[in-house]
Amino acid sequence: MSTHKHRPILGDRRPRFAGLTTFMRLPHVTDPSQVDIAIVGVPWDASTVNRPGARHAPRQIREMSGWMRLIHPTSGIAPYELCSVADYGDVPVNPLNLQETMGAITEAIRHISASGAAPLVVGGDHLTTLPVLRGLVSKEGPLGVIHFDAHSDTMDEIYGDKYNHATPFRRAVEEKLIDPRRTVQIGIRGSHYEPEPHRWALEQGFRIITIEEFYDLGIAKVIAEARRTLGAGPAYISFDVDGLDPSYAPGTGTPEVGGFTTLEAMRVIRGLEGLDIRGADIVEVSPPFDTNNSTALVAATLLFEILCVAAKAHAERQTRVPSANPD
Amino acid sequence: MSTHKHRPILGDRRPRFAGLTTFMRLPHVTDPSQVDIAIVGVPWDASTVNRPGARHAPRQIREMSGWMRLIHPTSGIAPYELCSVADYGDVPVNPLNLQETMGAITEAIRHISASGAAPLVVGGDHLTTLPVLRGLVSKEGPLGVIHFDAHSDTMDEIYGDKYNHATPFRRAVEEKLIDPRRTVQIGIRGSHYEPEPHRWALEQGFRIITIEEFYDLGIAKVIAEARRTLGAGPAYISFDVDGLDPSYAPGTGTPEVGGFTTLEAMRVIRGLEGLDIRGADIVEVSPPFDTNNSTALVAATLLFEILCVAAKAHAERQTRVPSANPD
Amino acid sequence: MSTHKHRPILGDRRPRFAGLTTFMRLPHVTDPSQVDIAIVGVPWDASTVNRPGARHAPRQIREMSGWMRLIHPTSGIAPYELCSVADYGDVPVNPLNLQETMGAITEAIRHISASGAAPLVVGGDHLTTLPVLRGLVSKEGPLGVIHFDAHSDTMDEIYGDKYNHATPFRRAVEEKLIDPRRTVQIGIRGSHYEPEPHRWALEQGFRIITIEEFYDLGIAKVIAEARRTLGAGPAYISFDVDGLDPSYAPGTGTPEVGGFTTLEAMRVIRGLEGLDIRGADIVEVSPPFDTNNSTALVAATLLFEILCVAAKAHAERQTRVPSANPD
Amino acid sequence: MSTHKHRPILGDRRPRFAGLTTFMRLPHVTDPSQVDIAIVGVPWDASTVNRPGARHAPRQIREMSGWMRLIHPTSGIAPYELCSVADYGDVPVNPLNLQETMGAITEAIRHISASGAAPLVVGGDHLTTLPVLRGLVSKEGPLGVIHFDAHSDTMDEIYGDKYNHATPFRRAVEEKLIDPRRTVQIGIRGSHYEPEPHRWALEQGFRIITIEEFYDLGIAKVIAEARRTLGAGPAYISFDVDGLDPSYAPGTGTPEVGGFTTLEAMRVIRGLEGLDIRGADIVEVSPPFDTNNSTALVAATLLFEILCVAAKAHAERQTRVPSANPD
Amino acid sequence: MSTHKHRPILGDRRPRFAGLTTFMRLPHVTDPSQVDIAIVGVPWDASTVNRPGARHAPRQIREMSGWMRLIHPTSGIAPYELCSVADYGDVPVNPLNLQETMGAITEAIRHISASGAAPLVVGGDHLTTLPVLRGLVSKEGPLGVIHFDAHSDTMDEIYGDKYNHATPFRRAVEEKLIDPRRTVQIGIRGSHYEPEPHRWALEQGFRIITIEEFYDLGIAKVIAEARRTLGAGPAYISFDVDGLDPSYAPGTGTPEVGGFTTLEAMRVIRGLEGLDIRGADIVEVSPPFDTNNSTALVAATLLFEILCVAAKAHAERQTRVPSANPD
Amino acid sequence: MSTHKHRPILGDRRPRFAGLTTFMRLPHVTDPSQVDIAIVGVPWDASTVNRPGARHAPRQIREMSGWMRLIHPTSGIAPYELCSVADYGDVPVNPLNLQETMGAITEAIRHISASGAAPLVVGGDHLTTLPVLRGLVSKEGPLGVIHFDAHSDTMDEIYGDKYNHATPFRRAVEEKLIDPRRTVQIGIRGSHYEPEPHRWALEQGFRIITIEEFYDLGIAKVIAEARRTLGAGPAYISFDVDGLDPSYAPGTGTPEVGGFTTLEAMRVIRGLEGLDIRGADIVEVSPPFDTNNSTALVAATLLFEILCVAAKAHAERQTRVPSANPD
Repeated sequence: MSTHKHRPILGDRRPRFAGLTTFMRLPHVTDPSQVDIAIVGVPWDASTVNRPGARHAPRQIREMSGWMRLIHPTSGIAPYELCSVADYGDVPVNPLNLQETMGAITEAIRHISASGAAPLVVGGDHLTTLPVLRGLVSKEGPLGVIHFDAHSDTMDEIYGDKYNHATPFRRAVEEKLIDPRRTVQIGIRGSHYEPEPHRWALEQGFRIITIEEFYDLGIAKVIAEARRTLGAGPAYISFDVDGLDPSYAPGTGTPEVGGFTTLEAMRVIRGLEGLDIRGADIVEVSPPFDTNNSTALVAATLLFEILCVAAKAHAERQTRVPSANPD
Repeated sequence: MSTHKHRPILGDRRPRFAGLTTFMRLPHVTDPSQVDIAIVGVPWDASTVNRPGARHAPRQIREMSGWMRLIHPTSGIAPYELCSVADYGDVPVNPLNLQETMGAITEAIRHISASGAAPLVVGGDHLTTLPVLRGLVSKEGPLGVIHFDAHSDTMDEIYGDKYNHATPFRRAVEEKLIDPRRTVQIGIRGSHYEPEPHRWALEQGFRIITIEEFYDLGIAKVIAEARRTLGAGPAYISFDVDGLDPSYAPGTGTPEVGGFTTLEAMRVIRGLEGLDIRGADIVEVSPPFDTNNSTALVAATLLFEILCVAAKAHAERQTRVPSANPD
Repeated sequence: MSTHKHRPILGDRRPRFAGLTTFMRLPHVTDPSQVDIAIVGVPWDASTVNRPGARHAPRQIREMSGWMRLIHPTSGIAPYELCSVADYGDVPVNPLNLQETMGAITEAIRHISASGAAPLVVGGDHLTTLPVLRGLVSKEGPLGVIHFDAHSDTMDEIYGDKYNHATPFRRAVEEKLIDPRRTVQIGIRGSHYEPEPHRWALEQGFRIITIEEFYDLGIAKVIAEARRTLGAGPAYISFDVDGLDPSYAPGTGTPEVGGFTTLEAMRVIRGLEGLDIRGADIVEVSPPFDTNNSTALVAATLLFEILCVAAKAHAERQTRVPSANPD
Repeated sequence: MSTHKHRPILGDRRPRFAGLTTFMRLPHVTDPSQVDIAIVGVPWDASTVNRPGARHAPRQIREMSGWMRLIHPTSGIAPYELCSVADYGDVPVNPLNLQETMGAITEAIRHISASGAAPLVVGGDHLTTLPVLRGLVSKEGPLGVIHFDAHSDTMDEIYGDKYNHATPFRRAVEEKLIDPRRTVQIGIRGSHYEPEPHRWALEQGFRIITIEEFYDLGIAKVIAEARRTLGAGPAYISFDVDGLDPSYAPGTGTPEVGGFTTLEAMRVIRGLEGLDIRGADIVEVSPPFDTNNSTALVAATLLFEILCVAAKAHAERQTRVPSANPD
Repeated sequence: MSTHKHRPILGDRRPRFAGLTTFMRLPHVTDPSQVDIAIVGVPWDASTVNRPGARHAPRQIREMSGWMRLIHPTSGIAPYELCSVADYGDVPVNPLNLQETMGAITEAIRHISASGAAPLVVGGDHLTTLPVLRGLVSKEGPLGVIHFDAHSDTMDEIYGDKYNHATPFRRAVEEKLIDPRRTVQIGIRGSHYEPEPHRWALEQGFRIITIEEFYDLGIAKVIAEARRTLGAGPAYISFDVDGLDPSYAPGTGTPEVGGFTTLEAMRVIRGLEGLDIRGADIVEVSPPFDTNNSTALVAATLLFEILCVAAKAHAERQTRVPSANPD
Repeated sequence: MSTHKHRPILGDRRPRFAGLTTFMRLPHVTDPSQVDIAIVGVPWDASTVNRPGARHAPRQIREMSGWMRLIHPTSGIAPYELCSVADYGDVPVNPLNLQETMGAITEAIRHISASGAAPLVVGGDHLTTLPVLRGLVSKEGPLGVIHFDAHSDTMDEIYGDKYNHATPFRRAVEEKLIDPRRTVQIGIRGSHYEPEPHRWALEQGFRIITIEEFYDLGIAKVIAEARRTLGAGPAYISFDVDGLDPSYAPGTGTPEVGGFTTLEAMRVIRGLEGLDIRGADIVEVSPPFDTNNSTALVAATLLFEILCVAAKAHAERQTRVPSANPD
């Protein structure tokens, strides 16, 4: 645990268009012992089966994250008061070697995690989540997951390949990285090639809130259902921006018409306050298909929302179990 | 009726960015006796009074329709199991001769219709609907219409001209192609030049659900009202993408701020399951004004929604009245 | 008061893409005694602290305003029947001299206001509102304000500077141009640097409807609350397009994710019918960041909405107090 | 002939982004007797066989023409000192009636021409040239033409139609509006459907300088060849922006790779100083396909170049034949 | 050899925006024995080390190739009269498996080549060239190559990887697919990481014409030098669009400022008439980074240029060695 | 003088899209004693009289500069071997206070210059040059200047204002910061409001090479003329990207049609090798008007070209006058 609180450069003191870009205008810190929450980039899209481009996401989200400020307008959470947060830089990916990059991601997350810090990962396509989860769970049992997405990402393979952005949650269950009965998927929609992946997910115990159920329930009940599913155990947030309607997030690899709005997503994330968030990712932003960085701005805003609930969780862990993180 | 079921090339077997483009990645079939539902392009915008470009729509919608899959996520309808569907190609338009093109459209639709197949037309500007209706109704009485649009399209003339994209539903009533008392218009809004066209439509018996009433009623009651208006007779769906809010469908000739969302449109279309759909069109996509093909993707998705209810209707007609289609 | 009713060039008589552009295709009239409502451009962004470009807004909004028609589809208000409306042209700004431009704006508004006409101002960044208010209130007490925005704009200073687009409502209170207890801010959201500006606004008596409260209340209660706050006194509408969600208004200097929709904004404005609107502005459209003029079209549509309630208010003032405007 | 010299609003006195837009920021004057040179818009693309959009050109070129200044940097010509120039507005086109619009164009040009003023026409697609020439030649014999273009535009028909943007120069020869032996075409390239139109043009006596010959000759000899071909008689300039390479003029309906540069075009136009220019057009700018108004800026710059040589020609006519224009 | 001459759909008979898209609007033919020249797509970018997107190229180039016509404007070559040309479709790539895709490409080319047809390949990134060359040379010795590019593509490895778009010409020499002494590289420029790859190429005997030498020599001498280097043996053209200046070809993965123009490239290709062209590729078009399909149009135009010289070469081979292709 | 040679992160070792962005991927160093050449950003456009946006330039040019490599392809200069180069960060601008920002720029440059390092400045609009020159010349007499631009920037005032991007070279002469007889302006073109500024420049002794003379002379003679004008004294390069044709540099505030190409600019800069370059700037890149970062890439490439000649000059100074920089 870090005792020094890193501070963003303030936009009301220095223009947001000036200076070098880092996540949230935070210092670039590569020693995980100096941070409580490490924001990590994974510029990688080697497993994207349709439109590539997510490799460019960390850079654009860094730029747009400079628009964020200090205090959450609704919850009043001031994450930089609660925790030490920093830009950990990008994982050293190899765009020509998928397995090597998987290993590098897992190693970076393990390094962060080992020192008691929580990683917030900025992908990358959705396969990113698999090596992140591998790195995270070394110290505890399987994680519960709140998964925002248009797609269940539980296919067994595509083009004969097991490791790609359509399969991470199937692999994660198989590798016992996540607990399917503590996993909720929000916003699922889109036509199917075959019913099997969806059925498989339900059979594992996933709680799937389709976009229709999302609107039929309303935000408050969606939050209640997510909290009920996750319970008190360690939790992970995985946010695929294609869960949002493409009018809010055009810059993504597999846009799926008919999703939720950014404000709805923000309100659900706020509703996760109090869960024991151990890590998170935001994935599938594809800048070449973005318009005027609008998706990157949305992703940066959602990253701030996630940071707030993660910072709260971190602070509560410090209070609750002082001996848990021995550093 | 066709007994061979055409199948799309599958995106999980061959990448969606590869291969020649057809609607839904279906085979290109020009013999209507081999299909139950023919998807037909009308690359034409000769009657557009403001921003042209709808002539480019069939090509872009073909491209984006490659993203669609096989099974509807909510209704479970698998259209390619129910019917034989194919890409019929484009009507041979003449961009320099409006009446000749009107004739060519009517002839193509009549050819399809005569063999018992239902046409799904991808326009083109909204005048497209008039020659399509002329071709369709040869065998039955006037059709009921579910018309999604920001504008009533019931002007008498514009610039002294009777045949353009502001007048098709007036002409269609005059020519007794549609039954105004079985016609519902959904999403109407936008300021008026004069009150006459709107009043005329009401006088004919059109059921107009303005965007305000749309939200005041809610989706379920809009569907109920549409079903009540249409009844059991033969029905036609005409979807002008400017009925959607421009944030969802920027690529259109006459954007009108303040429309419904794509998900709302999708849910209304799903609610039409069971109506006796005989044909449909989706019109007024204008690629030169689109951003990143987002409107074309929306149109392709709505086309899949319409295809599902049309396929269901076709299958039910086959069951119900085996002698109706003698082929 | 003008007795001659200026008329727009009609889009169903002459194509909207033809001819010289003016606001609403109205005549360009620079003598305020010939108009009841003067639409005025302020091409100015000298105080923008992040992304400039609002100086280009009047030109783009002029162009897109050519899409508007004559009669409001819901209220039936026909503003050009009620009042004489014209394009007053642009205030002679000096992009290199902020104080000189502030003076020029105040002078132009005073000139319009002195002859009994109401100004509708098309900005410009939000500092525009301050010199407009200075010009307006010469004849009456402080105005009540309905302020649509993502941000409260009540900071005391930024970069040591008191006059910029983050401070107008603080200055307006200090200069007693507006009555804080008759001011309602709608759509406020976005993280804070510090809690002070928000707290200061509440202390002055501002009624702040955050975006969360906006959705919790629903449109009807938001309108009721706005009307209750404003009461019967003279009122001013200030519409910052960043109050809208960026998916509806991408072309703005400080986009803030998670706002209201254009239709919601339109319905709130319609709900202001009957208030004693004395002037209005629509600000912060930034064409270099717009996509396909979509934000300019939204702004033009909102301008028509505001024009309708303002024209109604003007007509009611004429009826009610015939001696109030001696011209 | 006008004695009053109209003056542009100066960009160093009032910002170029401010105020209402007219060609060159000149006054809008509709009485041809008050001008020597009338700049006229023709917002029309009804005959475009591929990508429409030229109807939007006059508006965009008006906007970008505000960047032009007063004095030519090379020749020193100050056109507003030599002549009275004004924005004549747009011809009242009917987008739904080609023949009516042809008539309106001819009538407008005849009206201008009859009072001794020279028209500079801002199209519109290339069919615009035909009705312009019909209006122009009422008082004199056939005109010589300097025609910049990628295509010869001498097809006999397309889709069975005689009047479209692929045929104007064939019709103009047939109607004896132009003298083919005093016509030079510069920049011709692009593959052929059939050799006939090119051969026909050569048979009529057209001097065709293909893009290859253009570069083989060099600018100076191209100018000499153009001057030799035109001689001393009355001349007309027709500039299709697709003569330019698409990297300079992307916003056009039929881009043809491999053209000349803007500077090369400017230098050729400058080389026409001294010819007896009676009118000109610049056509085929298509804003929906433009990027950031770059083609409109190019067109505005070429319009200024043409204005300079046309103003010089007008001034020389005044000197030489004082009795020629009796007004 | 095919005796049936396939014909494009003609743009002057049917609008170019209508109908299904194929290369040059040719029939889609998958039996190589029916064609002399097969245009093949390779939608693939798995080895791109910076900006991906070339997988989308065949689709966009198909679309823009519809603008091409029948007869070369300078050489008069009518390729569809000389040969039977068709769209062979896309190679069945696997975006998740590089080696499998390499194999599929080689197999497709070998299949075409075995029946005596020449392949024109539309990539894909530049690694595409390697498996194409493997498929081509089965029947003859190493090919000479005319290679247009900004980069030599002769690195040994990148990120420890031997097979990617920076290495194809090194591998091709090592595998004896090409003859380095009969290889000319045109347009090379761009700064170096290290001098080795450039030096290696020179040591192998490559003739490198840097962009500086290109302009110092002039087009005629560049052509002479290319012809001298290639001699009479079998030849291959590889055209990387980043050889062009980015203002002509912005849509590419590794834009390198300071290249040649499209017309210059076209003139060099025309100068290759008479060489024994056995195949060709055009690679590295990246539609996500293109503006308005301008790079795709350039690529389509260059493809037509290459087709003309390849058709001429094919026809000459038929004349010269009637027994060479026994089919 | 620094003895440690900073090294860029290599693009062939770590992908160029990964990691935090700095100029040339160099370390961020704020102690000038550790560098020989400091690349400094000035994110500032407060004096722009038309289209603002240059404040966003340093960020975009940082991003695109990651594409540069190590060794110049023509001269073989390896700047990072010759000198210690680093990213100095951005000057702390105040967008709301022009004079304060002018002071901050001068102070930063003086700080760099005082320790013997040469600044390469990435603007910002062209007024940036004035405070840079003020900071630079503290130790020596007036500088000679090689000024690439479309405009002479020697107006006396605009809108009554003396300090803006149309006046820097007039002020610089008045303040004796530059020697007008050792100043050459290259690429000047564009129409005039009045002849005075151009005449004034000539009267001071500026050598103005207009774009026409540029092409009439050819590159070699332009270089010779520039070297002759500058002579052996200390020299400064000021590169306004609007000197380039807008097809190469669309993202700029005052595009002027008809400029030189990027390769021509690169060759002229290379021709300055051997001059005693003491500093340089590249200004007027305006990202909001750029297309796909193409102008930022051009600017980054020109920055590398300038860096090479500046590094050579620095190395020669070290050799020549070992005692000059005592640090």
